[in-house]
Order: sequence, then structure tokens, then C-alpha cells
Amino acid sequence: MFQRILIANRGEIALRVIRACQEMGIGTVAIFSEADRGAHYLDLADEAICIGPASSTDSYLKIEHIIAAAELGEAQAIHPGYGFLAENADFAEQCRDSDIEFIGPPHEAMRKLGDKVEARQIAIEAEVPVVPGSDGLITSDEEALRVANEIGYPILIKATAGGGGKGIRPAFDESMLLTELKAASAEAEKAFKNAGVYIEKFVQKPRHVEVQVIADQHGNVVHLWERDCTMQRKHQKLIEESPAPNLPLETRESICEAATRLIKNAGYYNAGTVEFIVDENNDYYFIEVNARIQVEHPVTEMVTGIDLIQQQIRVAAGEKLSFAQEEILCNGCSIEVRINAEDPDQNFRGCPGLIEDLRIPGGLGVRFDSHVYAGYTISPYYDSMIGKLIVHKPTREEAIACLLRALNEFQINGPGIKTTIPLAKKILNHPVFKSGQGDTKFVERTW
Amino acid sequence: MFQRILIANRGEIALRVIRACQEMGIGTVAIFSEADRGAHYLDLADEAICIGPASSTDSYLKIEHIIAAAELGEAQAIHPGYGFLAENADFAEQCRDSDIEFIGPPHEAMRKLGDKVEARQIAIEAEVPVVPGSDGLITSDEEALRVANEIGYPILIKATAGGGGKGIRPAFDESMLLTELKAASAEAEKAFKNAGVYIEKFVQKPRHVEVQVIADQHGNVVHLWERDCTMQRKHQKLIEESPAPNLPLETRESICEAATRLIKNAGYYNAGTVEFIVDENNDYYFIEVNARIQVEHPVTEMVTGIDLIQQQIRVAAGEKLSFAQEEILCNGCSIEVRINAEDPDQNFRGCPGLIEDLRIPGGLGVRFDSHVYAGYTISPYYDSMIGKLIVHKPTREEAIACLLRALNEFQINGPGIKTTIPLAKKILNHPVFKSGQGDTKFVERTW
Repeated sequence: MFQRILIANRGEIALRVIRACQEMGIGTVAIFSEADRGAHYLDLADEAICIGPASSTDSYLKIEHIIAAAELGEAQAIHPGYGFLAENADFAEQCRDSDIEFIGPPHEAMRKLGDKVEARQIAIEAEVPVVPGSDGLITSDEEALRVANEIGYPILIKATAGGGGKGIRPAFDESMLLTELKAASAEAEKAFKNAGVYIEKFVQKPRHVEVQVIADQHGNVVHLWERDCTMQRKHQKLIEESPAPNLPLETRESICEAATRLIKNAGYYNAGTVEFIVDENNDYYFIEVNARIQVEHPVTEMVTGIDLIQQQIRVAAGEKLSFAQEEILCNGCSIEVRINAEDPDQNFRGCPGLIEDLRIPGGLGVRFDSHVYAGYTISPYYDSMIGKLIVHKPTREEAIACLLRALNEFQINGPGIKTTIPLAKKILNHPVFKSGQGDTKFVERTW
Repeated sequence: MFQRILIANRGEIALRVIRACQEMGIGTVAIFSEADRGAHYLDLADEAICIGPASSTDSYLKIEHIIAAAELGEAQAIHPGYGFLAENADFAEQCRDSDIEFIGPPHEAMRKLGDKVEARQIAIEAEVPVVPGSDGLITSDEEALRVANEIGYPILIKATAGGGGKGIRPAFDESMLLTELKAASAEAEKAFKNAGVYIEKFVQKPRHVEVQVIADQHGNVVHLWERDCTMQRKHQKLIEESPAPNLPLETRESICEAATRLIKNAGYYNAGTVEFIVDENNDYYFIEVNARIQVEHPVTEMVTGIDLIQQQIRVAAGEKLSFAQEEILCNGCSIEVRINAEDPDQNFRGCPGLIEDLRIPGGLGVRFDSHVYAGYTISPYYDSMIGKLIVHKPTREEAIACLLRALNEFQINGPGIKTTIPLAKKILNHPVFKSGQGDTKFVERTW
């Protein structure tokens, strides 16, 4: 086992990793930018090294500084957390080139899965359903009609050079297809100087369901069941839960097995998340792999009782998984709310500042993962998430009730500080959420 | 189910009951003395009523004020918490006489179990082992010799009028017995004006093991396994855990069944705790019943997943228990540390004052039950406990490691505030505790 681990991150996930290491008897080296100097979580590490100014480009993203800090701090491994360099295959590779274990997947698998076309190909080879679509670009009207008929309407016409929601047009039936195809192509030519378009099934009212997987370096791959992260705002997850509500057990088992197959086929080890969309018929389609620990990993920890960060460290150190698939149970229901310092009245603009007053809820089944405290100043330089409130109860109904009472107890006050708590409460109280009927656009449509 | 419940208590247990009620959709009426005015937990109740000045005799112990507050607040039931009036049978009776349900046992059972002689008799009738001893007072040397031989040395000679550890003398063999008997009797005559003494087996190096029981009003009684509370200082529990370490499964099952029998025989319902001492041979002896929820109830909640406060409320409302004995599993290990604002260098004198800075640990398996926050002033009027830090992990070794890292994270600062955290850390780090080998005098002997 490692003697010392450097945590190449900040805030709550840095603290989360420090906690896991301390419980395992492993020393920790924290890094910090000038903006994070003096934060309490840094005191909890055995050593804290400044790696640059506030700007993350010059600090938390500065590979050579981080590797130098690991060498200086005599760390044998680096945990990247999430965000920053967590999915940077070059970073993973350079760590290993420097004889420092990267606590994450092999960089080869990370690179392959980072490429959408290659990831889709791996999924297809693993017999994991992908969103049906044309095999590359559409070259003729006849081909468009044939493909659309094969996959069934509605479909989406997507510009190959598009992105971020741009260059997408739906066609709901054959009569719309050729008109929209022409328009989409012309629009793409104009916007991206590339007229190439392809066709994909339009999965309506999708839910976001993802599967937590962990694999060791000895070929053992297990899943830790799924999470539902359908409650999003502009692709930002707001509320995550496990198990997914309103998903039949056979679908849950099937999607989890699919994720396991994919990870096995990709030559992947360590923790990873396989993301899917699920349609109204409970058919699921592979989207992408997140080759790192995720913000929402605690809900999986609560229902399975397995410490994912500790498992990541064990796997990175070469240990075999200590549990078999059939031993991993999903007990009760866990829901997480991300608490962001954002102003809902100002289009969710971040609102950093000094926390003058903080009341953290507690009690049976309540977990709060956060690096903040009364007296902490939320930095304007990094993401706005200040903590994650997680509950675990026997049933989903009880979990929602517990989360609502905990959010009602939660108080955070300081000049200018507003949070996403009021929005979270609205969602939790909404009948659509309560019945597990939402889709990924539900929040934006409703508020 | 009740519409509104009054909580006849303060601090963390008042907040604990408010949380349970909120999750069940039940309204709450809090009461407070002038000393607790402005506390955050009062804001969380639907109504808060001042019932008197700081002195608990004139507030939290004032039965008529509390019943009047319940009537004013339109509460149909009163939860007494622990301490104050929780085991006052008169209070329980007066509540019911006022058509307010007392969330606790029937006052008849409470009264019977409150009398040591009667409780012992109930135990004997339920075939629950009690500490062997003379059948009443010793009337002759011959009787003393006979009884002592029957139960075996060492024995204790106890003054019937004694108490609080006074008027007790051990005799380790026959040669000591008559001399000590005479001396004990003379001492008792002098100290208590009552020469009466009786003989009891001297259980050496006892562990404190107690069984959590819950019974409904329909004759169903189940246990929720045991807690070990051996780590004490002057009869004050410091650290509690479940399951009891170093206790064979057959003993655990036997002691739990004994507790269930006793509760059934006593005509008891609601939650209760049956306390035992366990000797070095794992023989156990009934001590007393605590006819209320206990400070250490969270460790039982963590290993069983059952919310004891919610169960108390359900049982008081007449509901049947919704689970059978065989469904109640004891999963993993949970340990609680009581955090008291006491100064270990000043003989554990309470040290009230303003909390200026507070850092609460979080993470997987960590629960903190407390009513305090940065900005809260610890009152000098009531007990010094400011919170309970509870962990739950798959194994005891992991639970200890988690608790130690959580205590290392914990920070509480303010003018003059000291806590029992350093002592708790010393205990948790000690090989005797780690191996589960301590007895109830271990802490006092060692520090």
C-alpha cells in the first residue's frame, strides 16, 4: 500500500480523499493555489504545498507543478479527484512516467473512451445499446430516408461540426425529413463552414441513468448499481439518487451488466461511471464513460456501504477487489443534493463570499460532505459547489422527507451568499419528482 | 397519528425529536427556559413556548407548566426525551390524566421498574439472571457465612441505607468475611444511622452491556440488539458501541432474549433499555431498566437502520410494530463519542461559553447529532453535553479509525471552552479499548 498520496484537487473532494487516506493510515499531501491558502482541509493533510496562483490554469491544471509537488512530498500516488486534471490522459501518463501511480484508469483506456466515436465503437462491440443513427455522414436524400425509417421517427439531424446544443434539428416524420435535412446542412455550412450532417434517434423525455463500476488490475469488474441524475439544469446535475426510481429491476440489472461488459472490453480499471439515457419505454442507450470518481459517488456509497475512494486507492495499489458482484447489495434509497453558492435570481451566477453563519443538519441517515465552515470564504476562482447533502433511508419516500427536513434546517448566511437550496426544495416537493417521472429537461421547463 | 407533539426537553434530544416528527409530517411544539431563548432548534419547531426561568426546577422539571404548554400548543402527545422528567412516573400519569399521550412506557411499569427491589423481582420471575446475593438483610454471622459460600467469593457487603458507592466493603475469602461484616455494620450505623447490611456477589472487572427493546401496546416485544457502554468515567458513559465487542454470539442472543422476557413480564411498552453487567466469563446480571430513550440510542439506529424516535411515536399512537424480531439485523459496527464541554484538567468541570469557531466532520458513515453551531452559547445551567459523534462502518477496526479521523477534524473554539475530545481520542487509541478488553473502571484507573 502507498505510504503517501498527493491529492491533485481542492475543496470537498480533496477533503474526501484526505478522510479516506486517514482511515486507511495513509499519509496525505495536499496542494493549494494562493486562493485556497489557509483553508481548514489543508490543515488536515500531513503536508500542504502551494503550487501556484489562484488561476487554475497556473495551479490545479499545471501538470509539472503537481508532479514536482508529489516528488517533493514523497507521494507514491496521486488522486486527481474530479474536474481539473482528473480525465486528462496526458496527466495520467506523465504521473506513471514519473513513477507515481495515478489513482484512476490506465491512460490508454482513458484516451479511447474520451473519443466519442471510439467509445461508441467499444460499446457496440460489447453489445451495449447506443443511440441508433446513421453510420457516419448522410450523403443522399435516399440514405436519409432509409436511415430514418430504420431507426424510426422522431430523429435528430445533427451537424458533425456542431456542439453544445447547436446545429441540431428534429424531424418528426418523413414529410419533414428532407426539408429539415437541407436546412440543417445549409445552417451547418453557414455556422461551422462544414455542411456535414448525420442522423440520430431523437430520444424524447430521456432520463439520465449511470452505472458505477469498479475494476481491479487483475481483470475483475463489478458494478455498484446505478444512479439516476435526471434532475439537471443546463447539463449540471442538481439531485442524484440510487437506485433509479421507476426503473424495473430487470432493466436495472441489464443496464448494470451492460456497463460492466463495456468497462471490461475497454481494458479499464479503477472506478468509472458509464452514462446512459433511458427513454419512456425503459430502453437505454450508452452515452459516455466518466473515467474518474464523480461528484455524486456518495449515494452509491450509502446504498452499498462501500467506500469508493478507498476502493480506488486499493485498486491503484494493485489489490484485488475484495468483494464479488453478488455481495454488492443496493440497500434502501440515497439522494444527494448539490449545494451551490449561486443566485437563482441572477441566472445562477456564482456568488462567492464570506460564510458568516452556518447551521449544518445532522441526524439519522444524514451526511454532509463539505470543506466549508462558518468563517470560510467561498472563492470566486473555482466552481460554486460548497457541499453535498446526502441522505440514506429505507425507502425513497422517507429519503425525500428526510432531505427536505435537512434542507429546511440548513442555514448559510453571509454578505451576498445565495444558494441552490430553494430550487432543490422546489424539485423535491414537486409531484413529478416525487413520482420519479421527470426527464432531463424537467427542471428547465418547470422553473 | 398525532397532529402535534410537544417535546418536553431541550438541546440535542429536543432537536432529535423535532427531526423525527418533521420526517413523519407531525407538527412540533418546543418548550424553552429563558436560558435557551433564541436557540436555533427552537426555530425549527412549529411553535416554541417559554415555560420558565433558567433553573430547570422552574422550567424543564415543572410538570404543570409543561402540560399547560401542551394544551396551549394543541399537542396530543409529549415526548420527554431523556433526563428531566423522562422517568418521572407522576409526569407520565399526569399527561395521560390530561388526555395527552406520554411517549414512553405506561406509568405503572415505570414505577415498578423504578423500584430496585421490585425490578429485581420481575427479573427473577422472568428467569433473568440477577447479581446473586442474600435474600434481604443479614441477621447472623452464620447466615453471612452460608450466603457467601453459596454465591462464592469475592463478595460485597453493602449497607442497605448506603448509596452512591458509599457503605460498600469487599470480602475476598471467608477469613475476611466476619471482620468486614462487623466493620461494615458499624460504619453503616455511624454513617447512615442504620446498621443493616446485605451481601452481594462482587462482580469483578464488569462490562456494561445494555439491550435496546421496543414494545407496542399489542403485546409485541422485540430487541434491537445490545450496546456496550463500558467506557465510563464516574458512572458517566463516554463511548458507546454496538455490537458489544468480545461477546460471543450465543451470549448476545441470550442477553437480548433475557431483556425481551423481562420487558414482556413487566407489562412494558414503548422503547426501553435493559442494563446488565457482564463478567469475565461472559455471565451477565440484570442491573436496571432505563424506561426512556437513551443518549446512546443512535448506535442502535446505525446498525439496525431503525429510527427509534419514530418507533416510539408510532408505538405511543397505538400502532403495531411493523417488523418481526428476525427482521432486525445488526449490520457492521457503530460507535458514539459524547462530546462534553468539560475541562479534563479541572476535574471535568463544565465550561460553558460562546462557540466562536466550529468545524464539524462529515463523510461516509459519520453522523453528528447536536444543537450547537458557531455562534451558539453553551449554557451553564444544564448538562455539559454539546453533541454526539457517531460512526458506522463494516468492522469495528474501521469504525475506530473513522471515529479517530473525525475527532481529529473536529474543532470547537471559544473563550474557555474545552471538551472531552482529547480523552475520547486517548481511549480510542488505547490497546485495551481496541481489543475490547476494558471494564467499567478502566478509564478511571488509566487516566
